[in-house]
Amino acid sequence: MSIFHNVRPPAEALELMLRHVNPLGAGELVPTSEALDRVTAAPVMAPHPLPFFRRGTMDGFAVRSADTHGASASLPAMLSIVGEVLMGQSATVDLRPGEAAVIHTGGHLPEAADAVVPIEDTQPLGDAEVEVLKSVALGENVIQVGEDMAKGGQILPSGHWLRPQDIGALLAFGLAEIPVVTRPRVALLSTGDELVSPSQRKLQPGQIRDINSHTCAALTLRAGGSPDVLGIVADQWEALQHAAAAALALADVLVLSAGSSVSVRDMTARVIAGLGEPGILFHGVAVRPGKPTIGAAVNDKPVFGLPGNPVSAMNLFNLLVVPTIHHLLGCQNPPQPRQVQARVTRNVAAMPGREDHIAARIVSRDGELWAEPVFGKSNLIHTLVRADGTFVIPLDAGGVTAGDWVTVRYFR
Amino acid sequence: MSIFHNVRPPAEALELMLRHVNPLGAGELVPTSEALDRVTAAPVMAPHPLPFFRRGTMDGFAVRSADTHGASASLPAMLSIVGEVLMGQSATVDLRPGEAAVIHTGGHLPEAADAVVPIEDTQPLGDAEVEVLKSVALGENVIQVGEDMAKGGQILPSGHWLRPQDIGALLAFGLAEIPVVTRPRVALLSTGDELVSPSQRKLQPGQIRDINSHTCAALTLRAGGSPDVLGIVADQWEALQHAAAAALALADVLVLSAGSSVSVRDMTARVIAGLGEPGILFHGVAVRPGKPTIGAAVNDKPVFGLPGNPVSAMNLFNLLVVPTIHHLLGCQNPPQPRQVQARVTRNVAAMPGREDHIAARIVSRDGELWAEPVFGKSNLIHTLVRADGTFVIPLDAGGVTAGDWVTVRYFR
Repeated sequence: MSIFHNVRPPAEALELMLRHVNPLGAGELVPTSEALDRVTAAPVMAPHPLPFFRRGTMDGFAVRSADTHGASASLPAMLSIVGEVLMGQSATVDLRPGEAAVIHTGGHLPEAADAVVPIEDTQPLGDAEVEVLKSVALGENVIQVGEDMAKGGQILPSGHWLRPQDIGALLAFGLAEIPVVTRPRVALLSTGDELVSPSQRKLQPGQIRDINSHTCAALTLRAGGSPDVLGIVADQWEALQHAAAAALALADVLVLSAGSSVSVRDMTARVIAGLGEPGILFHGVAVRPGKPTIGAAVNDKPVFGLPGNPVSAMNLFNLLVVPTIHHLLGCQNPPQPRQVQARVTRNVAAMPGREDHIAARIVSRDGELWAEPVFGKSNLIHTLVRADGTFVIPLDAGGVTAGDWVTVRYFR
Repeated sequence: MSIFHNVRPPAEALELMLRHVNPLGAGELVPTSEALDRVTAAPVMAPHPLPFFRRGTMDGFAVRSADTHGASASLPAMLSIVGEVLMGQSATVDLRPGEAAVIHTGGHLPEAADAVVPIEDTQPLGDAEVEVLKSVALGENVIQVGEDMAKGGQILPSGHWLRPQDIGALLAFGLAEIPVVTRPRVALLSTGDELVSPSQRKLQPGQIRDINSHTCAALTLRAGGSPDVLGIVADQWEALQHAAAAALALADVLVLSAGSSVSVRDMTARVIAGLGEPGILFHGVAVRPGKPTIGAAVNDKPVFGLPGNPVSAMNLFNLLVVPTIHHLLGCQNPPQPRQVQARVTRNVAAMPGREDHIAARIVSRDGELWAEPVFGKSNLIHTLVRADGTFVIPLDAGGVTAGDWVTVRYFR
């Protein structure tokens, strides 16, 4: 296969990449309270039923339901109060027919009781007796043992991205540690003789600071990966070949950001092609901005060559690298994109045969949301900070007309 | 004002809280590369124009545009090649009329040049001369000094939540440090005699593990705050009063999670009412689940009393505490909710006079998205882990009918 001119639509490019790389599988134990935004490495089963004791769900009286049958406001059932179930304590009270015990929401239901009469359906008669004004059915206002989760039941599947409530669910079972997938290590390498470190204060004309490594590092963190910013490599075959091979040996994903000139892009492509088998999967993605993007697989590891332009690099990182990181994590429920429906403020033309990703600001006019395209010559920094997200003009649409509804996906 | 029965719709409760507390204002300097998801404490201005030198935007030839006027494929302009602008280096070549210099995308435009002819519009004639087949206008294929951002222009406003591209924009100017708002400290305190630490392996009947502190800690992190899990306080007036006052003295926000019984909730309300002025703002929010929620302001600090039920606590934390944290941060562009339109799979009844927040799973049927309500008796853990998010039945709607479109907001 020629390493050039193998241009794919973005969805096809991604699908091709995912077919060539497998989830990492490696896991580690972490404290559950620190497992937010990690991904489970195995299904998690309930070590005990939840609740593991019968709980009342109302403030009121624990009763034998049969004692209340037929009770009404005009013909109340009279029960003797023989004790109180204290919160956090085992119910020790023994309930014989005709007896009731005070119970609070969440309290342990006494063994002989089978229902709770809510306090608003009762009438006290001194401290020792209570009138029940409404009958309760067996099990009413009670959560049974294991009703929330049976012992051995699956709390969470494998490959589950842990949200705040999942942390809570695991801790409810006392699971203080949890096996999670090791974060994929994403090596970020920049090349291009015009690039200098962002920490460099004074620049010569012709030099620009390398920002793609840092925006990609931030996107990697959001995607659940572990970024490794390796810095800038000179635009020389041997240096780049050596740096790329060394980075790939230690990482799970290699992302090369390739400078803006055509010559360095071509060299990057040849370096990627030489890293190993099966090699380059696509060279060029039918998307703007971001067409000159390369995807390769090398011994089951994904390698991406992104364009040097910051907007292009970010767009393609979101389109291809983020879902690849999710795939390596084996994640079944990656965070959904933040998106909003809005009407486009002006006509935007598009070339057929490629997806156009148009940066846009969301503005509110008379309570309606509008997407205002943000154009900058050659996709400048300006575009990145002024826009809220992007909308897509599909592969073979000719463009959008002012007033059309579009889905704006917020930048991550 | 009575501390009881001051029930407010959620939007009104939030508005009332925000009127009583002010953005913190305190800032700190952090490395820009570590400032993801922080909020700017001041506007950030451009220390130099960007770009600070004129750049070509195409591979081709730097020229004096006047030399190309009238050029066409049939009548090309002939120019002498007098040098090459190397990437990353100042253009030292002196360009006289009738001369051109090789330039690469992003290269420094020589002083005497004012446009770039793309390579595809040229025809080489040996190494020393080139035919220009198409004229270029003054400034064509050139980014002028400051065209992306003028010196002194605002890169980012104050109160801006920093996204990956914002990190890139700041680093493009060599701004290695950035003033951000100090994270609001959110003290999380649980009370209820039934609660034990999640790390406790063996429970007695009547005991449950305290999970709200940990789900709220995770939600606090997501909201840009700094959580402080203070653990469980015994359900006793003095202990709770002392712990709450001590926590509030050190924190910017106090969140009490109040156990499930009515008596402990009442005591929590009295403790909150005694913390200081102006005191309780609302007692009860017209929302289900989560009605028994308290909001107070004490010396400009927000205090929340959340219900003990985990689903209720999470729902109200999202509705009230998260936007309060954003307000304390002075954040103008908090992360948008992740949400999706879907059709509800079944009828759901609702009581007028309150907002019903219905937990739901998103399922795909024949390519269409449906919201399947997840019901659990008393909002159990099951509901939390099985649902993807919630949709709202508004205050005075009677419910929703199967097939209605709803907006499901994903759990954060």
